[in-house]
Amino acid sequence: MIAVLEKSASLKTKADIVRFLEQSGFRVQVSETPEGSFVSVVGEGAETVADALRDMRGVAELRPDAPAYPLVSRAHKPDATRVKVEDVVIGGRELVVMAGPCSVESREQILAAADAVRAAGARVLRGGAFKPRSSPYSFQGLGKQGLELLAEARDRTGLKVVTEVVAPEDVDLVAEYADVLQIGARNMHNYRLLSAVGMQPRPVLLKRGMMSTVDEMLLAAEYVVAGGNPRVILCERGIRTFETSSRNTLDLCAVPILKERTHLPVIVDPSHAAGRREWVPALARAAVAAGADGLIVEVHPDPPNAASDGRQSLAPGAFVDLMGDLGSVAAAVGRSLDSAEP
Amino acid sequence: MIAVLEKSASLKTKADIVRFLEQSGFRVQVSETPEGSFVSVVGEGAETVADALRDMRGVAELRPDAPAYPLVSRAHKPDATRVKVEDVVIGGRELVVMAGPCSVESREQILAAADAVRAAGARVLRGGAFKPRSSPYSFQGLGKQGLELLAEARDRTGLKVVTEVVAPEDVDLVAEYADVLQIGARNMHNYRLLSAVGMQPRPVLLKRGMMSTVDEMLLAAEYVVAGGNPRVILCERGIRTFETSSRNTLDLCAVPILKERTHLPVIVDPSHAAGRREWVPALARAAVAAGADGLIVEVHPDPPNAASDGRQSLAPGAFVDLMGDLGSVAAAVGRSLDSAEP
Amino acid sequence: MIAVLEKSASLKTKADIVRFLEQSGFRVQVSETPEGSFVSVVGEGAETVADALRDMRGVAELRPDAPAYPLVSRAHKPDATRVKVEDVVIGGRELVVMAGPCSVESREQILAAADAVRAAGARVLRGGAFKPRSSPYSFQGLGKQGLELLAEARDRTGLKVVTEVVAPEDVDLVAEYADVLQIGARNMHNYRLLSAVGMQPRPVLLKRGMMSTVDEMLLAAEYVVAGGNPRVILCERGIRTFETSSRNTLDLCAVPILKERTHLPVIVDPSHAAGRREWVPALARAAVAAGADGLIVEVHPDPPNAASDGRQSLAPGAFVDLMGDLGSVAAAVGRSLDSAEP
Amino acid sequence: MIAVLEKSASLKTKADIVRFLEQSGFRVQVSETPEGSFVSVVGEGAETVADALRDMRGVAELRPDAPAYPLVSRAHKPDATRVKVEDVVIGGRELVVMAGPCSVESREQILAAADAVRAAGARVLRGGAFKPRSSPYSFQGLGKQGLELLAEARDRTGLKVVTEVVAPEDVDLVAEYADVLQIGARNMHNYRLLSAVGMQPRPVLLKRGMMSTVDEMLLAAEYVVAGGNPRVILCERGIRTFETSSRNTLDLCAVPILKERTHLPVIVDPSHAAGRREWVPALARAAVAAGADGLIVEVHPDPPNAASDGRQSLAPGAFVDLMGDLGSVAAAVGRSLDSAEP
Repeated sequence: MIAVLEKSASLKTKADIVRFLEQSGFRVQVSETPEGSFVSVVGEGAETVADALRDMRGVAELRPDAPAYPLVSRAHKPDATRVKVEDVVIGGRELVVMAGPCSVESREQILAAADAVRAAGARVLRGGAFKPRSSPYSFQGLGKQGLELLAEARDRTGLKVVTEVVAPEDVDLVAEYADVLQIGARNMHNYRLLSAVGMQPRPVLLKRGMMSTVDEMLLAAEYVVAGGNPRVILCERGIRTFETSSRNTLDLCAVPILKERTHLPVIVDPSHAAGRREWVPALARAAVAAGADGLIVEVHPDPPNAASDGRQSLAPGAFVDLMGDLGSVAAAVGRSLDSAEP
Repeated sequence: MIAVLEKSASLKTKADIVRFLEQSGFRVQVSETPEGSFVSVVGEGAETVADALRDMRGVAELRPDAPAYPLVSRAHKPDATRVKVEDVVIGGRELVVMAGPCSVESREQILAAADAVRAAGARVLRGGAFKPRSSPYSFQGLGKQGLELLAEARDRTGLKVVTEVVAPEDVDLVAEYADVLQIGARNMHNYRLLSAVGMQPRPVLLKRGMMSTVDEMLLAAEYVVAGGNPRVILCERGIRTFETSSRNTLDLCAVPILKERTHLPVIVDPSHAAGRREWVPALARAAVAAGADGLIVEVHPDPPNAASDGRQSLAPGAFVDLMGDLGSVAAAVGRSLDSAEP
Repeated sequence: MIAVLEKSASLKTKADIVRFLEQSGFRVQVSETPEGSFVSVVGEGAETVADALRDMRGVAELRPDAPAYPLVSRAHKPDATRVKVEDVVIGGRELVVMAGPCSVESREQILAAADAVRAAGARVLRGGAFKPRSSPYSFQGLGKQGLELLAEARDRTGLKVVTEVVAPEDVDLVAEYADVLQIGARNMHNYRLLSAVGMQPRPVLLKRGMMSTVDEMLLAAEYVVAGGNPRVILCERGIRTFETSSRNTLDLCAVPILKERTHLPVIVDPSHAAGRREWVPALARAAVAAGADGLIVEVHPDPPNAASDGRQSLAPGAFVDLMGDLGSVAAAVGRSLDSAEP
Repeated sequence: MIAVLEKSASLKTKADIVRFLEQSGFRVQVSETPEGSFVSVVGEGAETVADALRDMRGVAELRPDAPAYPLVSRAHKPDATRVKVEDVVIGGRELVVMAGPCSVESREQILAAADAVRAAGARVLRGGAFKPRSSPYSFQGLGKQGLELLAEARDRTGLKVVTEVVAPEDVDLVAEYADVLQIGARNMHNYRLLSAVGMQPRPVLLKRGMMSTVDEMLLAAEYVVAGGNPRVILCERGIRTFETSSRNTLDLCAVPILKERTHLPVIVDPSHAAGRREWVPALARAAVAAGADGLIVEVHPDPPNAASDGRQSLAPGAFVDLMGDLGSVAAAVGRSLDSAEP
């Protein structure tokens, strides 16, 4: 259920409405746009406060059946959103593959990775510069130096760069170097961080939390869009279940469900779901067949010596093979891979 | 861990070994073949009893790293098993699509369904004759009459027939009419039923329990094969998780994992996973792209009037479209649909 | 939502109502009582068919907010049901402890177990006679002989007997010997079995399926009660989750939730939830503190040599200690243990 | 598996060992103490690198069966740790109850709450000053003013204060006012925050993540202790499962498991697990009976008008009743409530 507010509603009026709903036990999300403000009521049983809400000062209209994420909802915008990163478009007919190592480890490594994924047809280079690791002796990521190396790889190859940002205070620095800011699965519910990336202009790649439902991911996306940044790309990457053979359980039904509920583009990360490189190609092909708008895949020039996540990283040769397969599957579902001109 | 027994091991010797292991807290499975007998030790910590087991009378050899399902393991038989149902082969290069209604409702309905799925290229007709329903007024399935109607549909169309058997005492009757016996997800752990289908010659379609791991499905398959019937087809159909948008969460990573661990063919049921017909095609295409050997799909001539599961059943027109898509995806991964000549 | 039917509603009228609802995508349960018949609509979105249902022939009244299990609901019968097994009452102020081995193994073993649990204050002896095991060499249970031994232990000690029934065709035999028939977690959804125990007069101990919600357990109980047997005892025994340290995750919040929703008594099985005897006493005490009406605990005269589940069975001495603790906790929450006079 | 390092091991030597293990696919945790350094190998299959690790420079000894959290393990320190907050001791014979509102809303509200929980026998006041909320119009917490009000409540009542810290940059400020710093469930994996609270002297209340295993909670605790702060209190608060009747599924078996594996005190939060105030007392009593060292309970002077989480907050009268019950249950398990003198 959402309440559409009157354009003249004051700050105090809005706060009164929110307070009433929160005291009634609901989570509330406010989305403000040039066309007006929406208050979303999140939680079961919203119909019990519908009459009281309709009568409150500032409420222009109640939409009982509207989803709690009005801005990212298909009902709000029936046409698919295409997120443009210069000449790379995510959400169009052409699929975009993002690939690269878990972490930027060295100049040599990231340039080798960039050359390899570029040659195989990827359009975006992934690589972590900020890594929250569990030991002070662990590889921490190269930080700003890592960002500089990613930028050098971009200049050399023409690939765009996506990299994770893990703290609000790092957003400006990362946005200076990266083309797309990634919010990791562990931070999907980090409102400070969602707020920070919502207030800057770079596209945001939002990964699903491993304990989050599809609708919770859409609420997180709404938060970023409501913050002022409409360029959000959703990423399914597996959820935690009782099955432990794979690292996580990839929920590919999330792809058609998200396509039905939102206009935002949806990509899939098969690497973190599988956890083992042997199973990554099957999940990658399946994701394309299910209708994903792209993939983000871990590729390392030398997986056995990767500083992290080596077991789930593809070697360059395997990635070339996979890209061939993906092109065929994409064609089979009426799409194509957006490959850089060699 | 498995123990290979001496060929001369007596009944009492075998029972002593099993008793020792069960008293040590392990589940035990015995697989007997013309080449010999294997005792599988199921559960964590098997290495703690390895020395004692090795010393027991009747134990010829211990294989500490062998999986607990020796007969269905790839290690036992590297080549893929092809389950032949006359001229239909499941597990080969050609994919087999099974389709039809949840329940056989009437002669008119099942013949219309059979004609429709045959025309679209399916090779096997599905349809329930025995339905364990939750109310005495519910549609209970037509029982023997349903089996007769399925047989009539087979004679008319050349389709093979797969139907569920829900109780050991029904196995003979169902095997008289059906080409493939289905064990439903709720019965995956029903040892009496697994034993009964293991002792008859029809192929068995074994569905994964919604609370079962991949390895538990393989143990259930081992039970059927150890019972004497090597013609088992595995079916991934979704597991129960915290996500409730879809009816179950389809675990497509199970496809490459099963292909790695077992020589048995693997098919996918996208209908029960999705729970809504709108999402079935995406999951069906994804399953083929992931490497499944076939699909089992709910199709009804008139979904809004289906006696059960109408919300997840495809109408004939949608199924024709899907089969076209599946042919393209199959070709993209180097396979093809096994379509009946029209 | 439930529909109350007119008393004059014919069989055909009832079937028409059920068919309409099932075709609309809902599960349906019919409960018939001397006072009238109820049709329960199970599934989300029932309100969409409310108007059509209200207009159907045979529908006397619609109760949109009523739970789908009218007979077992507190709304139907505010007073707690006390299930009487002669002089043992389950569901009253006094807590009833059921205890004994997983399986009846021998006359010596079951009599030793019975003496031990009787001496410690248990009122009901548990012990499996029919065991669905995963290997033909596994201990299969003693079957009818096991039932006879349980009866001998009852005669000797005055304990009542609860034992599992695993197939409809065994119900009459088991009911001849046992005082309470147990439906195991794997059979909670086995409608043929629920129907069979609903048509005989012994009380039924219904265990929650390890992938079943609280409401699904109440629907299964409704099925037994609607079949004619109002003497149902519910048993929480843990659900499957991502946590694997314990065998299952005991859901003790199910106790107050069930107490709120149903008038039936609720007991707890701490043994199968823990999976390790060291953790059983903590869960047993917690269950009593949470408001359970009793416990069912695995106790074996010689756990290291138990034929099954030895790792989670208490030795007699530990059970004596536990019963002392349980008496204290029961007193702390205003109840007491129903102990046999020594 | 853990490797004990030589005391002379250099920084570079340590980093080499960590790098080797991470490249082999394991997570690594380094714990440094006055007695020496330990490297924990986290993940399955550690035995495959045991030989290579034993041969590395700097490795003094390998302990293959040691848990990956050496500092918090019972093996390291058999005696239970008592975390002292001046005269309040958590982890001793006396149970400590922490209670108060979800959020500090106003001076009047927090003082009323403090008076009420003090009068009922609580020793620690809980109340959130920093709230990461999902809307800019939502109640954001009073921030520093909230901390000042908590301090005023402490001065007035003698209660200690526990409050959540949500960002590393807030740690110093919160530590200035609070007696115990709480890490919320969403931040259990936030290494920056764990590191920050590990480097300050206040005790830390670490809540289990709702998708985290018991062992993952122990690894997070190890991280704090390894950072220099041994005063960690663990808190079970429910995990996410397929059951949705309660807000989360309280895993009370975690209490005896944690008591077996670690020397740290363990408390339970029944409020967030239940999600409904009606079910909180049953879970609170059960937690004490299971062996918890204390509780943290939401209490609000006026639950229907609480700014957040009102549905799961107890009113003062209900809390008084609960404290009476808890005293009885504590006595039944040989403990007592640590109640302030009135």
